[in-house]
Amino acid sequence: MRDAFHEVLDQLTDDLVEMTRLAASSMSRATNALLDADLELTQTVISADEQLDALEKKINLVAVDTLARQQPVATDLRIIVTALRMAASIERMGDLAVHVAKVARLRYPEAAVPPEARASILEMAQVANKLITQVGGIITTKDMDAVNTLDLTDDRLDALHREIYNLITSENAPHDRKTSIDLALLARYYERFGDHAVSVGEQMQYLVTGIIEQRA
Amino acid sequence: MRDAFHEVLDQLTDDLVEMTRLAASSMSRATNALLDADLELTQTVISADEQLDALEKKINLVAVDTLARQQPVATDLRIIVTALRMAASIERMGDLAVHVAKVARLRYPEAAVPPEARASILEMAQVANKLITQVGGIITTKDMDAVNTLDLTDDRLDALHREIYNLITSENAPHDRKTSIDLALLARYYERFGDHAVSVGEQMQYLVTGIIEQRA
Repeated sequence: MRDAFHEVLDQLTDDLVEMTRLAASSMSRATNALLDADLELTQTVISADEQLDALEKKINLVAVDTLARQQPVATDLRIIVTALRMAASIERMGDLAVHVAKVARLRYPEAAVPPEARASILEMAQVANKLITQVGGIITTKDMDAVNTLDLTDDRLDALHREIYNLITSENAPHDRKTSIDLALLARYYERFGDHAVSVGEQMQYLVTGIIEQRA
Repeated sequence: MRDAFHEVLDQLTDDLVEMTRLAASSMSRATNALLDADLELTQTVISADEQLDALEKKINLVAVDTLARQQPVATDLRIIVTALRMAASIERMGDLAVHVAKVARLRYPEAAVPPEARASILEMAQVANKLITQVGGIITTKDMDAVNTLDLTDDRLDALHREIYNLITSENAPHDRKTSIDLALLARYYERFGDHAVSVGEQMQYLVTGIIEQRA
């Protein structure tokens, strides 16, 4: 039979996986809204962000309540504190998806991303999505080896960021300055999203290791 | 006589104030490095960031140790969890100062900020510094009314951000695209720095209220 603390751990784990799923779907929809100049889709990104905020609040309440009622020590305590930190990082990823959606909304009915940058932005979004999906997988499958692959995936995001930077700083770029600046900020949003995913993955590894130690 | 828990609170308070001081000094030096193309100064920003990272780690250790040993509940517990969150925000402010310093280093020996943008960037830095200094003051003096003034100060940062955006998106701007993009990112770094300061101020208010309730 599971004790109360392990039931809380299972709940925290489920909620964190759900947060990664929401963050992935949110950034993916923000990217579609951006590339297709789809105004309605930007609205769903903002709704998903409210769900992420609510889940973070829920995790905070459960964590603080568990600290107060069960007064965990050692590994148990570190797991709870780590879950708080992971929830904060994933909540921030939702904010970055909202930033992307807001660029789409600001430029509507035009598309913010010009033809010459579409492939790079799309790939940045795909790599960012892959990262957070991998992170969700790590906590579901408890496959710790997967954490080591996150950095490699993130390197591709950095390379794409440099590619976009070279395009938008070129004086004979076929787009105007406003577009250059949109693209600079967009590339930064995807890169920060990736950084948060890697950081959550590393924290998850720590948390998962703790859970496995406890169950051994 | 103070009990062990209140001694920990005093230590956390001192460490958080010291972090605000370091973040203020770091962003101020990063700005000087940026405006004067001063390469040596960029190095001191990176050193200050290491100090900030170390202080955040220290606060985390003390907080987790206090949760384990003293098993605080109710207000005491919320204060410790809030201190963790505040330390994370101020640590992130140090990262933003490093981002500013890196723009200075990347453009050296040229100045990254062209004459037409110097006044706005300087004022953004001054307002950002005012915000974090006010936040440090709030925790030192426990003057809760001051928290309400943070948003007003932050509004000025938003206005300056818009001013810079209008300058750099103008097709007849006297600087090149690379400079426009540097300025877009710099304005965003100062604005994020301000957002974090406001958020720390709000968290501090919560923490300070907790401390005052305890001492009443």
